[in-house]
Amino acid sequence: MNTLDTTFAALADPTRRAILARLAKGEATVGELAEPFAMSQPAVSKHLKVLERAGLIARSREATRRPCRIIAQPLAEADDWLERYRELWELNYRRLDALLDEMQPEKRPGKRRKQ
Amino acid sequence: MNTLDTTFAALADPTRRAILARLAKGEATVGELAEPFAMSQPAVSKHLKVLERAGLIARSREATRRPCRIIAQPLAEADDWLERYRELWELNYRRLDALLDEMQPEKRPGKRRKQ
Repeated sequence: MNTLDTTFAALADPTRRAILARLAKGEATVGELAEPFAMSQPAVSKHLKVLERAGLIARSREATRRPCRIIAQPLAEADDWLERYRELWELNYRRLDALLDEMQPEKRPGKRRKQ
Repeated sequence: MNTLDTTFAALADPTRRAILARLAKGEATVGELAEPFAMSQPAVSKHLKVLERAGLIARSREATRRPCRIIAQPLAEADDWLERYRELWELNYRRLDALLDEMQPEKRPGKRRKQ
């Protein structure tokens, strides 16, 4: 439970999600991460601490660069939790499809099109 | 972006996740939702407000009961975001599998077992 709490809380911020998106492409230093955000390094460091506490990133012990890397495991657990609801939203999509079919049959491509 | 912020923030609490799990089975009133949590109705109402603001639940306008129902769409969007990282954690699982194979080939069922 606790892991999901900290994972979801860490993901509830657009800068932190953008940092993870960047790190998914490879390791980066705080300086490299700060650059595209027009944000100070201390501001980025604060977000990195939240991500680190949530176990979503780790920082290398290399003395000079200390690059950050993403840790995917908590994301896998968050995805597992969401998966339980997949059936619900897929049901909604099927209902919406059926409704659209009913409302405007001639406008739906490839389905019940009038010859 | 804003939707993901409020969705992930709403999911960062075990009671709110449990409320959604209950509502995935069908509509429920505040009283019905409060029961399994040994929690006061005002405490549950507070969580329901967070979920409602995040668009994860809706409350019927029926004057007497006002049952809540789950809305799956924001969960689908959160899942879409997490999906981008699926490749990362699946790569980790494959690496772990390969490592386990290397470390103890005789103990892995069905793989490289000694005849």
